[in-house]
Amino acid sequence: MKTIGYAAKSSDAHMVPYHFERRNLRDNDVSIEILYSGVCHSDLHTVNGDWGDQPYPLVPGHEIVGKVIDVGSDVSKYKVGDHVAVGCMVDSCQTCDQCENHEEQFCRNGMTPTYGAPDRQTGEITQGGYSKHIVAREEFVMRVPESLDMARTAPILCAGITTYTPLKKFGVKQGSRVGVIGLGGLGHMAVKLAVAMGAEVTVLSRSAKKEQEAKNLGATGVLVSDDKEAMDASANAFDVIIDTVPVKHDLNPYTPLLDIDGTLVIVGQIGPMEEPITAPLVLGRRRVAGSLIGGIKETQEVLDFCAEHDIHPECKMINADEVNDAFAHLEKGDVAHRFVIDMSSLSVDA
Amino acid sequence: MKTIGYAAKSSDAHMVPYHFERRNLRDNDVSIEILYSGVCHSDLHTVNGDWGDQPYPLVPGHEIVGKVIDVGSDVSKYKVGDHVAVGCMVDSCQTCDQCENHEEQFCRNGMTPTYGAPDRQTGEITQGGYSKHIVAREEFVMRVPESLDMARTAPILCAGITTYTPLKKFGVKQGSRVGVIGLGGLGHMAVKLAVAMGAEVTVLSRSAKKEQEAKNLGATGVLVSDDKEAMDASANAFDVIIDTVPVKHDLNPYTPLLDIDGTLVIVGQIGPMEEPITAPLVLGRRRVAGSLIGGIKETQEVLDFCAEHDIHPECKMINADEVNDAFAHLEKGDVAHRFVIDMSSLSVDA
Repeated sequence: MKTIGYAAKSSDAHMVPYHFERRNLRDNDVSIEILYSGVCHSDLHTVNGDWGDQPYPLVPGHEIVGKVIDVGSDVSKYKVGDHVAVGCMVDSCQTCDQCENHEEQFCRNGMTPTYGAPDRQTGEITQGGYSKHIVAREEFVMRVPESLDMARTAPILCAGITTYTPLKKFGVKQGSRVGVIGLGGLGHMAVKLAVAMGAEVTVLSRSAKKEQEAKNLGATGVLVSDDKEAMDASANAFDVIIDTVPVKHDLNPYTPLLDIDGTLVIVGQIGPMEEPITAPLVLGRRRVAGSLIGGIKETQEVLDFCAEHDIHPECKMINADEVNDAFAHLEKGDVAHRFVIDMSSLSVDA
Repeated sequence: MKTIGYAAKSSDAHMVPYHFERRNLRDNDVSIEILYSGVCHSDLHTVNGDWGDQPYPLVPGHEIVGKVIDVGSDVSKYKVGDHVAVGCMVDSCQTCDQCENHEEQFCRNGMTPTYGAPDRQTGEITQGGYSKHIVAREEFVMRVPESLDMARTAPILCAGITTYTPLKKFGVKQGSRVGVIGLGGLGHMAVKLAVAMGAEVTVLSRSAKKEQEAKNLGATGVLVSDDKEAMDASANAFDVIIDTVPVKHDLNPYTPLLDIDGTLVIVGQIGPMEEPITAPLVLGRRRVAGSLIGGIKETQEVLDFCAEHDIHPECKMINADEVNDAFAHLEKGDVAHRFVIDMSSLSVDA
């Protein structure tokens, strides 16, 4: 199938319109007309080559929602017209212990990312959601519940699952005390999800200027990390801290805020951190963990959870030709919403 | 009661004989003639002032075994002649959530260390096990099972519990794959305890020269951390790694050795570590934790566990007047046993 997307032609190039082919339907494939595609900070990292060489031209995007326009002969879960979603993965071995345990993101044989990786059957490079169509195997397609507004759902597929999984995995429940560092795409979803789980949520920020925004999202307020007195008074105050900051930083101000046996979970920065001091870890059996998206089953779960709790990411709609501007904003950081591309702004005939 | 010990008079001084008084028995106190006292690396750190100013003269020692010579009127668990032990704590508030949860080491009001801290009732500075006698409240005295050799039991009270607690807390059981970094007092106990729990244990060491020693302790062998090929081949090979290295070091070679959801537990270094790379944490949901000794109930449990599995620390007996030499050896590191002071070498009348 002919389609069109926005692609980076090299690591130093802007995104430009790109005509390409989606594969013919395999028996277990679902063909999707993409309606909306979220713009994730990792798209920027990837096309910039920050995380290694990439096979250009590259169409990023792994927060994808749309409607089914065709299905392969073996597809049983979806039919034409269904509202569906694709996230960060489009395939995995389906046989290893991690896949069998619904943790495809940790597939022993390597999961296939939604863009920039060879297809397991043909070796053809996968292309992502900044495009008009996508074809994906049924097992990696999720259902979007009826009550979710499609225009404000795409970021759940990465920002949502990336924060939902560690909140669940590290035991957040009614009454848990949760801190969230950073209030961008991931951070604002972490707040909404933790609040819906019944947690008391505090945003950790360098300044108090996000106080109102934090409260609007359901947090009790902001703990200002530059306010030493307030930080000291908050020792042991959190069961879980979700750290969404996507650059090198210092964890030492934050680890003492954890209670005994508490965990700080890194979901932003993949790279170096400042020198840590182990004392808060040893003296309080505290932990620093990382977490990577979540499995397909759990991605469906967070979509259902968002429907049940009427949670939508804060989205700012853009046209496809505004994606370079969106990247520029992301690069500056401090975006308290998610850019979402309205794919009706793209036409295959363009 | 008059007693004698070895004390540091200042942070730069050697240990010297020191005559002092133990408190009169309170109703819930047990009076103990110390038979053996282990020499822990933290004794050295503390008397050197590495962890802050100390109230000198200071008698260190928190791996204490001996026999009961008197009991207060309310003591019900012990009688004269019983074999007993005292570890790293001699008191706590007994009322906070951590104390009620048998985690006195994390007492919200601060536990009272065995030496160098004010007694909760009188403010008198506690003095440790490098001495002929100690008086401690019943709740902080453990029973030494009959089958344990008293001369080879003292190190269980710190090195034992410090490694037993994280092995239990982080889920080590039959078939677990455990790595142990460092083969000193803590490391060699970690190996013995993990082996007795049914784990497959590997020692991580800079060279292969500890291979035989590791095997003697029950480990399957040594993974040489300078052997890049062997390290690469051991990615994902461990469920838990116990890191006993008591100085600043680099965790980056070790975190990729953890399997998905695995934990590296720091029990040695309390201070700075080299800059970490977060990729192994994020991409495998791995964790770095710390752990601090264990509660009183669990300290009794590790004594019982050692009796049940016939585990004794590797001890090298010294006389009290050899303690400065022992410290010099510890400072050099690389001691595959625990120095234990034979208290019969000290006399109150000396």
